[in-house]
Amino acid sequence: MIFVIIERLYKAVEARGPVCLGLDPSPELLPQGLLRTAGSLAEGYLEFNRKIVDATLDVVACYKVQIAHYEALGVEGLVCYRDTLRHIRARGAIAIGDVKRGDIASTAAMYARAHFEGDFEADFLTLNPYLGFDAISPFLPYLERGEKGLFVLIRTSNPAAAEFQEFPSPDRPLYLHVAEAVARWGEGLIGKCGYSAIGGVVGATAGDALAQVRRRFPSLFLLVPGYGAQGAGGVEVAPAFRDGNGAVVVAARSIIGAHRGKPDGDRRFADYARSAALSMREDIRRWIG
Amino acid sequence: MIFVIIERLYKAVEARGPVCLGLDPSPELLPQGLLRTAGSLAEGYLEFNRKIVDATLDVVACYKVQIAHYEALGVEGLVCYRDTLRHIRARGAIAIGDVKRGDIASTAAMYARAHFEGDFEADFLTLNPYLGFDAISPFLPYLERGEKGLFVLIRTSNPAAAEFQEFPSPDRPLYLHVAEAVARWGEGLIGKCGYSAIGGVVGATAGDALAQVRRRFPSLFLLVPGYGAQGAGGVEVAPAFRDGNGAVVVAARSIIGAHRGKPDGDRRFADYARSAALSMREDIRRWIG
Repeated sequence: MIFVIIERLYKAVEARGPVCLGLDPSPELLPQGLLRTAGSLAEGYLEFNRKIVDATLDVVACYKVQIAHYEALGVEGLVCYRDTLRHIRARGAIAIGDVKRGDIASTAAMYARAHFEGDFEADFLTLNPYLGFDAISPFLPYLERGEKGLFVLIRTSNPAAAEFQEFPSPDRPLYLHVAEAVARWGEGLIGKCGYSAIGGVVGATAGDALAQVRRRFPSLFLLVPGYGAQGAGGVEVAPAFRDGNGAVVVAARSIIGAHRGKPDGDRRFADYARSAALSMREDIRRWIG
Repeated sequence: MIFVIIERLYKAVEARGPVCLGLDPSPELLPQGLLRTAGSLAEGYLEFNRKIVDATLDVVACYKVQIAHYEALGVEGLVCYRDTLRHIRARGAIAIGDVKRGDIASTAAMYARAHFEGDFEADFLTLNPYLGFDAISPFLPYLERGEKGLFVLIRTSNPAAAEFQEFPSPDRPLYLHVAEAVARWGEGLIGKCGYSAIGGVVGATAGDALAQVRRRFPSLFLLVPGYGAQGAGGVEVAPAFRDGNGAVVVAARSIIGAHRGKPDGDRRFADYARSAALSMREDIRRWIG
């Protein structure tokens, strides 16, 4: 069995660098001109996303679409979520559905169908591990067919993350126990590149968590939030990598909002996004050599 | 400040008993006749849900709608989710959106908007605690206005729940640490009935977890899964209650699928659902006195 999707992601990082562009639009990031001509906010989001995708295809590894930004607009927002995923995938790029779902097995099977098939089909999904393996196992048949992958939350980038993820103590934290389970679940799904189709989410803002997880679990491909607006830079994300691969670093606001306050930013927002993605790639490459 | 929603739920349990009816339709639970006449599976779900709600309003405390069953049908399924919530709330009943979302604060704010306002507005939501207080805090402004409530996952009912929820050991489990935090977050939101607008989810299949949480955290209103198809009965759910209140017990399949294989079940599915809800109420009342 060839785990196509993780090979594709590995090769994408090799060819285009480790930036994962987060398509998390919000009203204040949308150019005024686009807001005026779009029929609705959701239609504005879609137009915005399409233009940014088309301008960045050759400089990012993949796209991450945070479904909450679309759910907030109700049914119409989810039409935009669907069409954003379709656009990314139609362009031959890799789409991560950032859904962070997690439920008991019979319900998780519904989520697997929802996000690996049909309207909301993505290539990778993020999942929440709180319910244990039951929340993950219904997704595995899709992974075993080679075309799909997962990123399970291990150590997140938010200020309160330690509250439960480092229980009972920072030297014996839950998140390392989760990382161990995630690596074990993915053992049979390792591609030629050396990484499993089940990867993990580890924030760059959490001290040495990233370095620890990278060192102990070499087959985990890492999805790394926390760069840019959340405070981490190239030096903080560097420990996620092995030989310049094995991780993608997420940025959303600092890329898709790069046009704000810039000359002709309203019209040239996609160029500014491309340029911000290139700067980010340079910044990271400086540290991962 | 009066926390209207938790008072409403408390009074609903007092007046109509502690059954929380789960509206988790699936193709095999749908009566054949309804499947034939509906324009689509999603339209069939909606018709099914409406008839069951109308037949059970006076015998259940509230309804829980598991969004995964609707997400699995894509955009059309979410139209049905929206319309199911609207129907429940238009009938004056309490709707729990079982969404189990959990994300960093800026994203959680999007989820709060998605599920406490607009198309998918529910009265209560379930949330996942893995990301800590950041995943909960954006929902609090809604709770402080009195009209909304939360149930945070503490100890779930699935077989693999102990994997992380009882880390590092069953005698010092994460889930009690989570329960303590949930009780603390809800301290300022306690209604006249003695319960907070932030409650918890604790399964009835997890040994003495239910009794422990009930004893230690008296202000937590509990949402209890695990009854019926998952194996728990009246005796297992009884520890969730104080003086016959303070909890609702969820059943879905055993109620909404009660018509299957019964005389005229295809046409009289709503009557069978009502009758199953009444039996469940009797079963629980026998144990909680």
